[in-house]
Amino acid sequence: MHYKKLEARFAKINDLNHALSMLSWDDAAVMPTGGGVARAEALATLNGLIHTELSAAEIPDLIDAAADEPLDAWQSANVLEMKRSCEDAMAVPADLVMAYSKATSLCEQRWRQLRAANDFKGILPLLGEVVNLTKRRAQCLSEAKGLGQYDALLDTFEPGLRQVDIDPLFSSLLDFLPACIDSILSQQEPAIPIEGPFAEDRQANLGRLMMAQLGFDFDHGRLDVSHHPFCGGVPDDTRITTRYNENNFLESLFGVLHETGHALYEQGLPASWRTQPVGGSGGMALHESQSLFMEMQVCRSPAFIAFAAPHIRNAFGGGNESAEWSADNLLRHVRKVGRGFIRVDADEATYPMHVILRYDLEKALVAGDLDPAEIPDAWDEKMRSYLGLGTVGNDADGCMQDVHWFSGTIGYFPTYTLGALAAAQLFKSATQAIDDLPGLISHGEFEGLVGWLRQNVHSQGRMLATGPLIEKVTGEPLSAEPFKAHLVARYLD
Amino acid sequence: MHYKKLEARFAKINDLNHALSMLSWDDAAVMPTGGGVARAEALATLNGLIHTELSAAEIPDLIDAAADEPLDAWQSANVLEMKRSCEDAMAVPADLVMAYSKATSLCEQRWRQLRAANDFKGILPLLGEVVNLTKRRAQCLSEAKGLGQYDALLDTFEPGLRQVDIDPLFSSLLDFLPACIDSILSQQEPAIPIEGPFAEDRQANLGRLMMAQLGFDFDHGRLDVSHHPFCGGVPDDTRITTRYNENNFLESLFGVLHETGHALYEQGLPASWRTQPVGGSGGMALHESQSLFMEMQVCRSPAFIAFAAPHIRNAFGGGNESAEWSADNLLRHVRKVGRGFIRVDADEATYPMHVILRYDLEKALVAGDLDPAEIPDAWDEKMRSYLGLGTVGNDADGCMQDVHWFSGTIGYFPTYTLGALAAAQLFKSATQAIDDLPGLISHGEFEGLVGWLRQNVHSQGRMLATGPLIEKVTGEPLSAEPFKAHLVARYLD
Repeated sequence: MHYKKLEARFAKINDLNHALSMLSWDDAAVMPTGGGVARAEALATLNGLIHTELSAAEIPDLIDAAADEPLDAWQSANVLEMKRSCEDAMAVPADLVMAYSKATSLCEQRWRQLRAANDFKGILPLLGEVVNLTKRRAQCLSEAKGLGQYDALLDTFEPGLRQVDIDPLFSSLLDFLPACIDSILSQQEPAIPIEGPFAEDRQANLGRLMMAQLGFDFDHGRLDVSHHPFCGGVPDDTRITTRYNENNFLESLFGVLHETGHALYEQGLPASWRTQPVGGSGGMALHESQSLFMEMQVCRSPAFIAFAAPHIRNAFGGGNESAEWSADNLLRHVRKVGRGFIRVDADEATYPMHVILRYDLEKALVAGDLDPAEIPDAWDEKMRSYLGLGTVGNDADGCMQDVHWFSGTIGYFPTYTLGALAAAQLFKSATQAIDDLPGLISHGEFEGLVGWLRQNVHSQGRMLATGPLIEKVTGEPLSAEPFKAHLVARYLD
Repeated sequence: MHYKKLEARFAKINDLNHALSMLSWDDAAVMPTGGGVARAEALATLNGLIHTELSAAEIPDLIDAAADEPLDAWQSANVLEMKRSCEDAMAVPADLVMAYSKATSLCEQRWRQLRAANDFKGILPLLGEVVNLTKRRAQCLSEAKGLGQYDALLDTFEPGLRQVDIDPLFSSLLDFLPACIDSILSQQEPAIPIEGPFAEDRQANLGRLMMAQLGFDFDHGRLDVSHHPFCGGVPDDTRITTRYNENNFLESLFGVLHETGHALYEQGLPASWRTQPVGGSGGMALHESQSLFMEMQVCRSPAFIAFAAPHIRNAFGGGNESAEWSADNLLRHVRKVGRGFIRVDADEATYPMHVILRYDLEKALVAGDLDPAEIPDAWDEKMRSYLGLGTVGNDADGCMQDVHWFSGTIGYFPTYTLGALAAAQLFKSATQAIDDLPGLISHGEFEGLVGWLRQNVHSQGRMLATGPLIEKVTGEPLSAEPFKAHLVARYLD
């Protein structure tokens, strides 16, 4: 049976992806600097092998033959996913795959040091190489898919997503957010500062406690430290990371809650399809919807803070009676809106402005309208216009703050904000479906909520694309309206 | 040029081995239990791919053609190493390679739990499978190499090593050691106990301090924790592990010093041959000689303890004036000889008895004269006869104490004692070559000593087999005499 042959081939590819994923985690979380060159070579070889497997000459015929066999719905969807990944692989020549892998590994490794040194000039040659190779990839993908070059990159992160889908949503946000942010800023009550330092091990213990409470399975995953927080690993061994600021425990805590949303998705993927493409997570917009569902919709709610406040006080020895450790004051902290430099620390109202800035610039990079050397100036200009903040001389907190471009992840940023919109829309549906959801959350009872996500999203794997899945679950196409309504309800009502 | 084509192929194999090595480290040091099945599959796929590369039909012709090209000495030795690994690979069918990889991964993972539970019956089915597959491998290798089955396994760990080389050395030790141990026991002065507990982080800090002092490069390596201490990773990123006993800091400290000896070897391998077979470490007897050189010859000497004692006191707050923290008393501790259950905690005089016991049993296992189910009884009998200790009912500290058989490492144990003999012989030469070596060690000056190892051993890669290398460096073939003389000088003079 041709289908079974394909399954065996993709199980092997899954094993190679396991190796790639774990070595990438290791690279970011534990590898000493001097191991970087050998690691970059090893990752390039693995990427080359995966490419060879996916672009093997006999696969298209096998796929055609399998499509004629009696297949159930999952198997049919699996064949479509196989076809998509093979076509993506065949579009790009093997030498470019390996050169891109090596260049992105080395640039990301170097970025970890040079960001700390605020040294954009130092990273520029490596970044230039990454951008050049990305443009070559975009051109190959564009020709094979018949898409514009930026669309061809978007499509690798969120299949089917196009600029024409993004632009009206982002326009709607640009029309709405500046005035919304002004209103929030004029109304919000200041929070009482909570003084540190907050020891790393206490922050880590609190993070793990909250992860376990939300349903993270520590028999199938870990929490570690890295320069840039991420969720990696594989569904059976999901590795999330954070970084600790001893002066502000909320940064790491909400980073952990965010990554826990990603991890719950991975751990909840359909167990019987672990080794196959259809069993993987959907596009990155859907993935980000899961992290932001948890972080923004659930964990920054009064109900969650009512539940979490005693645990937070307990972790740091905060007094039960003291005003700064009260649930009310903690809630003011986790809902503080402000125009800041750092995307990952941004509140949900200003966050889309950070994303739209990056979307503008990365489109220009791919189109060749922006040279990598011009990024700091362009960044500064956009930061002033979108958020009123200058970044001249502070590239570490400006264009060097995010790992994405340095690791070749260009065409990804829009998925954060699409994820935020999807999260609001999904949370609205969950609230309608689950009786007294705030009450459950305030008692630390998350089984019903996570069960709803498991059933409606996680267990679906890649059976549906993100758009159709959101529409199936919520009854509406993805829109900005539930997100806007959420901001009004949370901050302005 | 055919030679260059081979180099490129072996660089690719080196990258796959990088992945294998790092995933094995991860498996032992950080992986959550639930990740084990997916990991075993991924490791089997990688082992299968390496096997496919090594047994590719065109390689023998390439090797023959390369041997006719003008090659320098390193290139010629490299071709010989390529030939050896390809012939080993071709001897074993691919399905057996993958089955063996999967069975050993799963058995090792399970052993970690079941050793703690002292549950030999529980691990027996998995161990039985590992032993069966090892016997099948031994048979394949035996036929291809024209060697006995146990010799064929030995040859995979230490090329060229045969039972006929081992037996006279072990006989010589069996003739000498029992009376030697009795004499030591009757003469040795008791050490004053040093009371714990010794916090793990303090032990780890002391371990890292000593590693750095000996020359371990933390930009190219790490120290972590695992159930069974080992040295893994790759030369550019050498990962050693230990385990902490809060009641006895010397176990971990000397474990770390032992693994540091391995790591210095790996980090000192020839930099320009990193990706090629000839640039790898020699056989495991030579590898163990490097760890035991450091642990036994260097670090259990009065000179080293004179240097280390203030650092040890500093790590644990030991009083300068108190008798138990004195250099003399510490030296009595690190030279304590006694018949005990645990190989890795054994002193250098009783250690060979542990090895010979395992050598006897694993030969019987491979020959089919010992059934895996009979191991506990056979172990108990041997422990009584070699060390006068019964192990009935205590398999955790008996036949389950070592990871080796559970991870399919059968035919390895003799290399520990050959390594101990080689270490004594090499240290004798180093002492003759380096002016006032004890004086340098007592001042914490290890550059000259490590430089001598770098020049004579580490930088040689696999240019020579272990036997010829030892003979070249020391002027004598490997023998038990320097080791015996060392025991007499250290413990009985």
